[in-house]
Amino acid sequence: MLLFFRQQEVHVKNPHLDSLEEDILYHFDLGTKTHNLPEMFGDIKFVCVGGSANRMRSFAQFMHQELGMPGDRDDIRDICAGTDRYSMYKVGPVLSISHGMGVPSISIMLHELIKLLHHAHCRDVVLFRIGTSGGVGLAPGTVVITDKAVDSFFQPQFEQVVLGKVIVRSTELNKGLAEELLSCSTEIPDLPTAIGNTMCTHDFYEGQGRLDGALCSFSTEEKLEYLRKAYEAGVRNIEMESTVFAAMCHVCGLKAAVICVTLLNRFEGDQITTPHEVLVEYQQRPQLLVSRYIKK
Amino acid sequence: MLLFFRQQEVHVKNPHLDSLEEDILYHFDLGTKTHNLPEMFGDIKFVCVGGSANRMRSFAQFMHQELGMPGDRDDIRDICAGTDRYSMYKVGPVLSISHGMGVPSISIMLHELIKLLHHAHCRDVVLFRIGTSGGVGLAPGTVVITDKAVDSFFQPQFEQVVLGKVIVRSTELNKGLAEELLSCSTEIPDLPTAIGNTMCTHDFYEGQGRLDGALCSFSTEEKLEYLRKAYEAGVRNIEMESTVFAAMCHVCGLKAAVICVTLLNRFEGDQITTPHEVLVEYQQRPQLLVSRYIKK
Repeated sequence: MLLFFRQQEVHVKNPHLDSLEEDILYHFDLGTKTHNLPEMFGDIKFVCVGGSANRMRSFAQFMHQELGMPGDRDDIRDICAGTDRYSMYKVGPVLSISHGMGVPSISIMLHELIKLLHHAHCRDVVLFRIGTSGGVGLAPGTVVITDKAVDSFFQPQFEQVVLGKVIVRSTELNKGLAEELLSCSTEIPDLPTAIGNTMCTHDFYEGQGRLDGALCSFSTEEKLEYLRKAYEAGVRNIEMESTVFAAMCHVCGLKAAVICVTLLNRFEGDQITTPHEVLVEYQQRPQLLVSRYIKK
Repeated sequence: MLLFFRQQEVHVKNPHLDSLEEDILYHFDLGTKTHNLPEMFGDIKFVCVGGSANRMRSFAQFMHQELGMPGDRDDIRDICAGTDRYSMYKVGPVLSISHGMGVPSISIMLHELIKLLHHAHCRDVVLFRIGTSGGVGLAPGTVVITDKAVDSFFQPQFEQVVLGKVIVRSTELNKGLAEELLSCSTEIPDLPTAIGNTMCTHDFYEGQGRLDGALCSFSTEEKLEYLRKAYEAGVRNIEMESTVFAAMCHVCGLKAAVICVTLLNRFEGDQITTPHEVLVEYQQRPQLLVSRYIKK
């Protein structure tokens, strides 16, 4: 009985939602009147999100194999095939969704995902963002499990504009989950893994101190100084979605983790020159780690 | 001779770029060593960008027909097929590229696009963003040509973080181009068109005052008050990319316009309930207007 009460449905934080006759999840091409969401999604326990649609399809196929699901893994269909905004695949209790690049793109997806989990009466769901990132003082290929998601000023917070006013939200993630993932990583050979802070920026070039964009107004020395300050603040990798992911999961009481592999060490360069096949192997590393956790 | 000197190559604003031995446009899967960019792109005069990959392929096919190009329009291939980050199609002097949703996603694309145009020695290029938006006090289906791109505080500026410091950039667009587009629109039947300010937000739900997200902490009255203030500040539509598009084009001296159709009137609701086939027709309207301009 105790266990039953401790199970938590996914809650939205919006009093208006109950009064909607129909909720259209526009960017998923799903809706409460057109789809039976509890039947389609009620058994979801794990949601994995990542930027690239191809990578999230590969992850779904990989989970299909790892969970020993019946049928051909190549037949898994895109639930959001009616739109090209996001791709979504379901494999047993695992949902794999792409979110595009940057905070606004993932935030639209998260609003609609959290509403979907709510409408489907899902319980005890764990969310993972698996992605790629630039490393700060780490060898390329290292998997970083995020301790704190921080902004460009190294603060563990996310600024959300609501009706023209800035609201600050905490980007706290689940420490226990991060530790469990780190412990999983030690069981997998050749998977260099670290826990560290992840800096989330709003662009890939100037915001991350790259010298190779169309615009650049700073020197190599100024760039390196910024990266050194980031390193001193505990930042071990840089990506573009972690703060809003952490903030929205925190507000909604969802257990969440961010796991990104580093494609390069930013102290050594800006361009991603690593051969394609090596990058493909790197990108599988966060998938491998999360699949190991899910199988447990 | 005068004409020759008045033609302008596309310039990057980055002194470091010339010293790069190779420039890899990572998110396009193109590079200066692996591709002959002047041969592939040297004749580009118009670049049209929009959020959805499917829509930008449709636009390329439409331009293929409108420009009377040889060959089958269904054979146009995605130049960025090696990556799923963006899609890119070339039809004679017209380049059609998708940019995903939100400022960070379009900013990565613009950095690499401006470098591509620079490496290809393109001259006198005009850029158009064609997209969808929420209308403010306009009937659904109205095409809005942007006068000023403004932020959530109704200011015509874009805040860019560079090495942890906030830099403010002007979002001024080309007034002459906007007027020419408005004049074009009068020649097309059933194309309701207005010039107005476009507000660019960093999310679709709370930032645009929607009551139907997973999170909402304000009342219907507070929402309507914010939209009324926006209307008084000249805002006629809301989308998620215009400020950084305007700012980057302005810094690089590129002639640019933003043309978005409104899918709903935000004073009347938040959800997009219009039937799919009507939305498809709406989405073709900015394409129709830009194709008319290009053909001139």
